[in-house]
Amino acid sequence: MLYEINEKALKLESEGKKIIRLNLGDPDLATPPEIVEAAYASMKAGKTKYSSSYGENKLRQKLAELNGVKAENVVITPGSKWGIFATMFLMMKGGGNVIIPTPYWTAYDLIAKSLGAKTKLIRTELENDWKVDIDKLESLIDKDTRMIILNNPNNPTSKVIDTKTLDGIVEIASKKGVTILSDEVYGTIAFTKTKSIIDYDGDCKHILSNGFSKTFSMTGWRVGYLIANKPMVDNITKLNQITINNVPVFIQDAALKGLELHKQIASKIKAKYKQRADLASNKLSEAGFKFTKPDAPFYVFPKLDGLNSEKFTLELLDKGVAVAPGTSFGDYREHFRISLTAPDDQIEEGLDKICEAAK
Amino acid sequence: MLYEINEKALKLESEGKKIIRLNLGDPDLATPPEIVEAAYASMKAGKTKYSSSYGENKLRQKLAELNGVKAENVVITPGSKWGIFATMFLMMKGGGNVIIPTPYWTAYDLIAKSLGAKTKLIRTELENDWKVDIDKLESLIDKDTRMIILNNPNNPTSKVIDTKTLDGIVEIASKKGVTILSDEVYGTIAFTKTKSIIDYDGDCKHILSNGFSKTFSMTGWRVGYLIANKPMVDNITKLNQITINNVPVFIQDAALKGLELHKQIASKIKAKYKQRADLASNKLSEAGFKFTKPDAPFYVFPKLDGLNSEKFTLELLDKGVAVAPGTSFGDYREHFRISLTAPDDQIEEGLDKICEAAK
Repeated sequence: MLYEINEKALKLESEGKKIIRLNLGDPDLATPPEIVEAAYASMKAGKTKYSSSYGENKLRQKLAELNGVKAENVVITPGSKWGIFATMFLMMKGGGNVIIPTPYWTAYDLIAKSLGAKTKLIRTELENDWKVDIDKLESLIDKDTRMIILNNPNNPTSKVIDTKTLDGIVEIASKKGVTILSDEVYGTIAFTKTKSIIDYDGDCKHILSNGFSKTFSMTGWRVGYLIANKPMVDNITKLNQITINNVPVFIQDAALKGLELHKQIASKIKAKYKQRADLASNKLSEAGFKFTKPDAPFYVFPKLDGLNSEKFTLELLDKGVAVAPGTSFGDYREHFRISLTAPDDQIEEGLDKICEAAK
Repeated sequence: MLYEINEKALKLESEGKKIIRLNLGDPDLATPPEIVEAAYASMKAGKTKYSSSYGENKLRQKLAELNGVKAENVVITPGSKWGIFATMFLMMKGGGNVIIPTPYWTAYDLIAKSLGAKTKLIRTELENDWKVDIDKLESLIDKDTRMIILNNPNNPTSKVIDTKTLDGIVEIASKKGVTILSDEVYGTIAFTKTKSIIDYDGDCKHILSNGFSKTFSMTGWRVGYLIANKPMVDNITKLNQITINNVPVFIQDAALKGLELHKQIASKIKAKYKQRADLASNKLSEAGFKFTKPDAPFYVFPKLDGLNSEKFTLELLDKGVAVAPGTSFGDYREHFRISLTAPDDQIEEGLDKICEAAK
C-alpha cells in the first residue's frame, strides 16, 4: 500500500493537483553544498576508476574512529538497504528465520522472503510505549533463528529503544547465540541519546547498519556502511565483488566531507526536525490522536481508535495530503505514518488537513 | 589468482617498485570532462533524492531508441555486474544450471556458486578460432538448464562470436526454451561489427547486459543496464527496490550525456585501442606467441606451448609487469591475458618485457 499511495500521489500531481507529500522518508532539505563540491572535486581529480569492494581506507578509518572500532570492521555499501540485504543474503540463504519487532520497515520482510527465509514478527504496542516483551522474544527463538533485526530509532514510530529493554534483548540474543542486525540509520540525528549495538560489543559479534541518507540529506547518493566482525566484513566484501563492485570513490569522498562537517550539519538538521516534531505533536494532541512523542526524525505514527487507515489514507489523498497507512508497517490498522519531510508551511497545512479529516 | 596478482602488484608498488599494470580491464583514459560536468550540474540542480528503481525515464528512453526496443524493456543498474547478478538471482535461485563457454569472466561462475546453482562449462580453443561447438552445446542442455551466458566480445580473448555460430546458439536456445544472457559490455567499441542478441529478438525473450564503464571510461561510476522483456524488467526493479534502490540520478544524467556524445567519444576510444591492439599483435607475433587478433578492446590472450602461466605471471611480476594468468579464465594453463589499458609508453615497455621473458 506504501508504493500504491506514492504512485497515486504522483499521478494526481501529474494531473495538476497539488499534493502535500508526507508519505516518504525523503528529506526536503538539499544535500549540503560542501558535500556536492567535495564530490565534484573528487571526480575532477580522476577518482572515477574501479575501487576497493571494502570501500576507501580513509572513509573506513574515519567511521572506525567515530564508532570506536577498527577499520577492518567497516565495509562501505551503496546505501544501508544494500548492507541489510547483503547481511541477510549471507546469513539467511537457504532458509532459517529472522525475528523482527513490529511496526517495521517492510523492506526487512521483503528481503527475507526474496531469500526464502521466514519472518517471525513480535508485536509492540503504542499503549506499552512500543516496548519489546523480552520473554516473548525469548520464546520465539528456535534452532532455525539466525537473526534479530532491530530498527533503533524505529521507522515508523520514531521511538528509541530504552536502555533496559535493549540490555534485555542483547542478553537474550547473546545467550541463544543469535546475531542482532541493528539498523540505526536515524540514530545520529535522534533527539534523545540512543544506545548503539556497538556499545555492547567490543568484538563486533552483532552488526550495525547505518547510512548517510538521513543525517546528510543524501538519500539518492546511495552510500552507507556496516560494522561487523572481520570475517563478516570479508564476506560482505566478497559479495560486493560479484555484485555492486564498489561505491564510486567520489561519493565516498562526499560522505567523508559530510563526516568532517558532521557536528554543524547534524545539529542544524536535528534542530529543524525537532521543531517539526513539536509542531506535529501539539496539533495531533489537540485533535485527540494518541501517539508517542518522536525521539528522532522523521516520523509520527498516530492512532485513532476505530480508524480504517487505508480508507482514511485514500480519502486524505483526495483532499491533497499523502501519508502512509499503518498496515504498511504490520498489523496496525488504526495507525498511519506522517513523514515530516516537506517544507514547513506544507507540513503545517498538511497537519491541519489531517486533524480536520479525523473529526 | 587474478585478485592475488593484483594484490601483489599493489604491494610491490607500495614498496616503491615500478609495476606496469596490464592485469585489469580498467582503462587508463579519464572519464571525458563533459560527463563529469553533466554529473556536477545535475547534483547542483538537486538531483540527489531517492529515485525510480527502474532508472530515469530519459535515460531508459534514449537506450530504448539506440537498441530498437521500448523504454519498458530497459532497466538501469549500478554497473553491468549488478545486472548479471540480479538476472541470475531471479533465474537461478534454488538451483538449476547455467552453461558458460570458456575462457570466461570468472564473475559468472562466482555468482552462480553464490546462488547455489551449477555451472556447465563448454570449452573453446584458440586453434578453432574460439568457436562454440553447437552440437556440444545442445548436448549440455538438460531439464535443469536455466540460462546460457555469452560474453560477446569475449573477455579475455577479445573475440566476437561469428554470425553463423551466434545464429546456431540462438536457434538451439530458442528450440530448448533456454534464456540467453548476453554480456556485450565491449560491444559498442568493437573493431568489427558485433551482432547483438537484441538483433534476434523483437520481443526480448533473451537478455542483454551492457554498461557505460568500457565505452565511456566510467568504470568506477557503476552504471549499466539490462534489456529484457517487461516481466523480467519489472522483477529486476522489484529486486532493486529491496537492495540498491536506485542509481544516483546525477550518475544517470552523466551516462545520458555520454550517450549524446557517443559518436565522438566512442570513435576516439576505439581508434586508441585499435592502435594498441595492432602494436601488441605485431610484437607478440614476432616473439612467436599464438593468439587471435583482437576484434575489440581491451585484451589479448596469447598462448605459448608448454607455458605454466601462473609461474610465468609471477616471474613477470618480479620483472615489473603485471598480467593475468590463463587459469583465471578457466583451464587455460598455456595462456595469459594482457590488458591494453595503460599509457602507450608503458604498454610498449610491458610488451617488450613479456616477449623477452618468453624467450
